[in-house]
Amino acid sequence: MKTEIRAFTHLAPVPAVLVSCGDGKVSDIVTIAWTGTINSDPPMLSISVRRTRYSYEIISKTGEFVVNLVSQNLLKVLDGCGVVSGRDTDKFEKFSLTREKCAHVAAPAIAESPVSIECVVRQKVELESHVMFLAEIVGASARADWAEGGKLHIPDGELIAYVQNRYVKTGETVGTYGFTAKK
Amino acid sequence: MKTEIRAFTHLAPVPAVLVSCGDGKVSDIVTIAWTGTINSDPPMLSISVRRTRYSYEIISKTGEFVVNLVSQNLLKVLDGCGVVSGRDTDKFEKFSLTREKCAHVAAPAIAESPVSIECVVRQKVELESHVMFLAEIVGASARADWAEGGKLHIPDGELIAYVQNRYVKTGETVGTYGFTAKK
Repeated sequence: MKTEIRAFTHLAPVPAVLVSCGDGKVSDIVTIAWTGTINSDPPMLSISVRRTRYSYEIISKTGEFVVNLVSQNLLKVLDGCGVVSGRDTDKFEKFSLTREKCAHVAAPAIAESPVSIECVVRQKVELESHVMFLAEIVGASARADWAEGGKLHIPDGELIAYVQNRYVKTGETVGTYGFTAKK
Repeated sequence: MKTEIRAFTHLAPVPAVLVSCGDGKVSDIVTIAWTGTINSDPPMLSISVRRTRYSYEIISKTGEFVVNLVSQNLLKVLDGCGVVSGRDTDKFEKFSLTREKCAHVAAPAIAESPVSIECVVRQKVELESHVMFLAEIVGASARADWAEGGKLHIPDGELIAYVQNRYVKTGETVGTYGFTAKK
């Protein structure tokens, strides 16, 4: 028998990523944990953003954004981009990040992120505190040593996850999909 | 400069959870990694399910489901519930799981899961390979030693995350939200 607790955003672990956006003139970065894969074919993900965010304005206008995965060396940037507003601050400059040109969207990727996922918004869903952008993944890039032969391999122990209000390490692989069905 | 890779469902780490559903007569469990928190107030999450899944039928009919978080002792169940169909098999029985009554929905929770999140569907979004259920979290329960004083505390190192096609451990806390803004 479990103990009743209050209804809350208990899902865990969730991703913690840096979302970059821009139209060539303005650009911004926002930390997002309210994100997930939503469709396999075509590949799609969603991000949920508060209407007051500077990034919300930019993404609403451009219909594009880039999801940049976060390895442990970017932990301070991950937290910092969640507590500073891009209206007053150029976050690329403040956090010494490099804009990287994308092949399929005009929004900049973050060069220092190990994997950047280029997204085009297909649908917007208005919720109460947040707006969801449902987006198709139209391209991607990864650091060279994670993408040998053009195939992504994320090493164990690199990425950050978010559990309650904490950033946690990811660790070793304990199984691969379908392992219980193999003899 | 990063290397271009194919557009794919690269977001990682993502959650890996057991979703239970039922109407009192039939019930099922399905493994879901395409899930995420989508709204803070009210608390909401989404799950994406293939139309061919038995759970899809049940959730479409009942408008309810329970997201059960997965700790390492449930790893084989997590994988097994993703590769077996509930049409032929009672997964509670097959995997020696116990139906637990929920306070706010008729769907059963999984007693062996450390945290169960009770959800009511508010909106259905039809995508190509999957259908998204956008749901409000209306209740929750947790094992007693994770819920002292009614407040959830998930210990480090317990939950499983999903990275590419691999189940990985979560590890130690490396920071809490806002830590870079504190002096």
